[in-house]
This record gives sequence, structure tokens and C-alpha cells, in this order.
Amino acid sequence: MLFRSHVCDAITLAEYDDSAACDRFASSIDVATYEFENIPLACVERIASRVAVRPGIGALRISQDRLHEKDFIRQLNIATAPYTAVDHAGELSRAVAEIGFPAILKTRRLGYDGRGQVALRGPDDLAGAWEKAGGAPCILEGKVDFAREISVVAARGGDDAIACYDPPENTHRDGILDISRVPADITVEIDAAAKALTARLLAALDYRGVIAVEWFVLKDGQLAVNEFAPRVHNSGHWTLDACAVSQFEQHIRAICGWPLGDPARHSDAEMRNLIGEEVEQWATLAAQPATALHLYGKAEARKGRKMGHVTRLFPKDGLA
Amino acid sequence: MLFRSHVCDAITLAEYDDSAACDRFASSIDVATYEFENIPLACVERIASRVAVRPGIGALRISQDRLHEKDFIRQLNIATAPYTAVDHAGELSRAVAEIGFPAILKTRRLGYDGRGQVALRGPDDLAGAWEKAGGAPCILEGKVDFAREISVVAARGGDDAIACYDPPENTHRDGILDISRVPADITVEIDAAAKALTARLLAALDYRGVIAVEWFVLKDGQLAVNEFAPRVHNSGHWTLDACAVSQFEQHIRAICGWPLGDPARHSDAEMRNLIGEEVEQWATLAAQPATALHLYGKAEARKGRKMGHVTRLFPKDGLA
Repeated sequence: MLFRSHVCDAITLAEYDDSAACDRFASSIDVATYEFENIPLACVERIASRVAVRPGIGALRISQDRLHEKDFIRQLNIATAPYTAVDHAGELSRAVAEIGFPAILKTRRLGYDGRGQVALRGPDDLAGAWEKAGGAPCILEGKVDFAREISVVAARGGDDAIACYDPPENTHRDGILDISRVPADITVEIDAAAKALTARLLAALDYRGVIAVEWFVLKDGQLAVNEFAPRVHNSGHWTLDACAVSQFEQHIRAICGWPLGDPARHSDAEMRNLIGEEVEQWATLAAQPATALHLYGKAEARKGRKMGHVTRLFPKDGLA
Repeated sequence: MLFRSHVCDAITLAEYDDSAACDRFASSIDVATYEFENIPLACVERIASRVAVRPGIGALRISQDRLHEKDFIRQLNIATAPYTAVDHAGELSRAVAEIGFPAILKTRRLGYDGRGQVALRGPDDLAGAWEKAGGAPCILEGKVDFAREISVVAARGGDDAIACYDPPENTHRDGILDISRVPADITVEIDAAAKALTARLLAALDYRGVIAVEWFVLKDGQLAVNEFAPRVHNSGHWTLDACAVSQFEQHIRAICGWPLGDPARHSDAEMRNLIGEEVEQWATLAAQPATALHLYGKAEARKGRKMGHVTRLFPKDGLA
């Protein structure tokens, strides 16, 4: 059976638990990568036994479980939101006593774009919360009273070189990234600290590829990790238009052992996601000055679905 | 027979004179375009009788013949190099008497990258010149004593809107484009005049799509057309990295009747072609600051073959 692809010479399409297909795939390639973190680990481990998998199994395993992820980050002396494990419904009251309100109950596995998360503002929100989060092992996270959210999209290459893009400031709507704006409204000290801590995380993971680390900037200027994604990230899409080398090319360079590209931005940028019916604005957006429009070609504009994004460029440090 | 493509859903592959294939192709699409000008006109005319062809048949017909091209430009009161038709070898001495030395004998049809051109510095170069140029109808062009060469890559959209990129200054080596640098070292008056004259040409051709017009800037600041290409152009490759919307996307927007994108550049740029073995420098170039590397994936680095290009970005007006 022939599968066609617009972006590669050959394609293997099979169930994750099809061992023979995994082996065939592994024997047909020089290096494997993944574009989202919720792949069954057994499949990736099988491939990794035959061919290099980058960023690597360790980063994937850790990022698949919010509890492991936060434990790992804390071990590196990097702050996170306060959290505690909630293995079953009966532990929720103990966890609330420990973390307090407001808090967020988050499924340990398979959550994204706000799914598998239940906000707990007070005791009235406890009823049914476990079931709403998915009825699976969770963590309870204390809500962080942050000044802003930023993310560092960074790459670590074959020669252990690290290249960090400038951190955008991210704002969300309905649990989904709405806008990433670069530069973030942060001091040079916070910018440097976010990049240095991200580099510490990359080295600890012996990472090869692009990572995205979401940071809370607390009101006192301290940084705490929200979460990381072992892949290119929506908050890095602005690099397509504001950098000589985008996060996508950078990831391929890193996993192939090619030299990393310069992550410096040539322009300031504001990336806005086009969610659901917002994509119908495309023609208006396409005609605006200094604007790059990206449509993903999805057939149907469902509610909450990322249909494209638009990046507006501005002269760098134009106001400085 | 199934043909695969990385960039479109369906592909028709046939000889230009396969009328049935032309008709099948025309009936499978909404709009046709071409990426080089040396296609048999009959094939394009057949397709145009069934579906819109953009930029259009007129521009294609004119650009396929250097004599028609120069006649057309002169009709618009736009200057060109001095030229005269040389229909057969016996006319060469008359042509030389008219144009003088130095001059260039150029085949009217099918020349590119310096092929089909013979430099005539003096009477000694006349012997064999006709055969060297290809033994087909030619023009004899007087050599223009220009200060520099620039090009205007511009688009005309469905609503007759015209968008011009800033003209790069182009330097050649062995008859092949070597470097395009933007901005060109020209006055704002020359910049404005080159764009205005390009717009006149676009309107006269009732053009829909991207065109590239090569201009000589004479020592007195006057402009003369060298030639035009009814397509995206090597001297516009820098727009991929220094503009929000590249010449490639702009062409698709124009032929589809979408709004044209903003052609303003966000950065200064220097594009350098990687010819033949120069492509072996790729890893060094990839690691340089503010550098975007483009490799075309051609299997063999033959002499004179365009294997890729590299664009270096600079802060806009950084020296101003």
C-alpha cells in the first residue's frame, strides 16, 4: 500500500502497537523524531533500540507525566508551581489541605490546550472535579500569582551547543494560546535567567532538538516552570517570520547534527492564533502591512481548533 | 500512471505537444501559471482556451523573443540598450555598422544565464559569431555603459493593485547572477522611477502575477530595461527571508486573486548564489549569524549549476 506525503519521500502509517511496522520504519531511516509527546512510550522505545531517536526517550518519558516532569524540574533546583500527587479521588481532600485554594486539578497524562484540567476556586468546586479531570491519576497544582507568562524555545545540537530564541510573552484565551509577543515585557536579567535555566534543563535531559519551556514570571521577578514540551511549540511560530532560521528548521538541524542556526530575531513580532471561525478573517489579515499569514489547510473550522496563525512584524527595538 | 509531487495534490506529466494531456490538465485546475518562459506557446494557448492562464499569454509571447520584447518596451517610451534585428548571418555586417563595437549578439529565443550570447569587442570577433550564438535569428545589442544593474520584482493582482519589492543591486559572474544586495546604491528618485516604469510595463501587459524587470542604471541616472522575466526571479530570492510575504507567495496570491501582501522589506539583505561546488560550503554558511541557507536538493554539483543560495540579513538602514 502506497501512502503519499507532501513533505517526505517515504511514509510508514500503522498503529503504534504494530511492532513489525515500527521495525520496518526504524530500518528505513537515519534518525527518528516526534512532533507530539503523547505517543505510547513502548513504540518509541522499540524504535530507539534500532535507530537514534531525538530529542530522546528520557525527555519524552518525563514530559508524558506531569508529576514526573515537576519532580524532575525540582531536582534541578528550578522552581515550579506548588503541587502534590492525587492518585485517586480519596486523596483530593488531603491534597487541597496541602495546596489550598485556588488550585487546578490536572490529569497527569494526555492533557493539552486546557483539557483534563479543572479549576478549584473553593470547596464548592470539589464535587465531581475528579471525574471532570478524567478519573485518572492527577496532580493538584497551586495557582501561581504570576505577573506574566513567557516561554523559551531553545535547541541543543549534536555538539552540545545551545541556541535560545528570545522569549515571547504569551497570553491565553479559554485555555488556548492566543497571542505570543516578542520581546516580552521583562528585564534583561529575567531574559538571561530564563535562557540559563532552560539551558540547564536541556543539559540535564541530554537533549538533542528543539524544546519549549513555559515560564511563569512571578511578581518578584523569580521564574517558575509551568511545563515543557519536547518539540517545536505554538509560542515559537513567530520564528518563521522574525528569525533567519525558524524553530522548525532548527529542530531538523539539531536532530541531524548539523550546525545550529542563529536564533537572533531580526524583527519584533506578534503572533496570533486563528481559532475556529477566526480563520474567516484571512483575506483582511493577508492585506495588512508587515503581516505573514499561515493557514493550516484544515477542512473544517471547529470551535477551539487551531486553523492557522498570523504574525505581524515590527522594527526591532523600534521604541528604544 | 501515478506521479507523485511534494507540493501539489495532483500532477500531469506529458510532452508539451500532447494535446489530450493539455486538455486533461486544463480541466483539472482553476488557474494555470508557468515558472519559466521557454514553453512552446501552442501548449499554453491550448490551455488558455479552457482555463485562465496567468500572468497571461501576451507577456509570455513577448518575453520569448528578445526582438519583440525590446520593441514592446520601446513602444511604452521606456529605454532599452540600442539594438537591431539580425535575421541571418549576412545581416551581421550591416548590424555592426549600425550598432558599433562593443556589442553582444544574442539569440532571439531560448537564451538564459548567458547562453546564446556572443560578445563582439571588435571586427576580429565577427568570424564564427553567428554559429556560436546558435545559428538562429538574433539581435545585436549595443553594450550599455551602465553604473549598476538593479531589478524590480513586482506583482499585479486581480484588482490591478501593484506591489513592488525594493530593487536589489545585482552583480554577475560568468554570465550568471552572483549577488543581489538590497538596498541598491541608488537615490530615492531612481528607486521611485524604476518602480513607476515597472508598473507601466505591468499595466501595459495587463499582467497578473509576479514579474522581474532588470534595469541598467546609466551613469547619468537614466534607466534602461535589460530584459524582463514573466515569473519569480533569482534576484528576488532574498524576499523569502527579508519580507513578510515572499515573491513566491506573492505570485500565488496574484494569480489566485487574493490580496497582495506587503512588499516592504524588514531587513537589508545580501543573497549569494551557490554555483556548482560552492554548495560544499553549506555547513560553514549555515552556522553564520543572521544567515538563511537554501539548498535545492540537486543531486550533482555541476559547473555553472545553481545548487542553492544563502541570504544574510542586516538591520534595515543600520548605517543611516
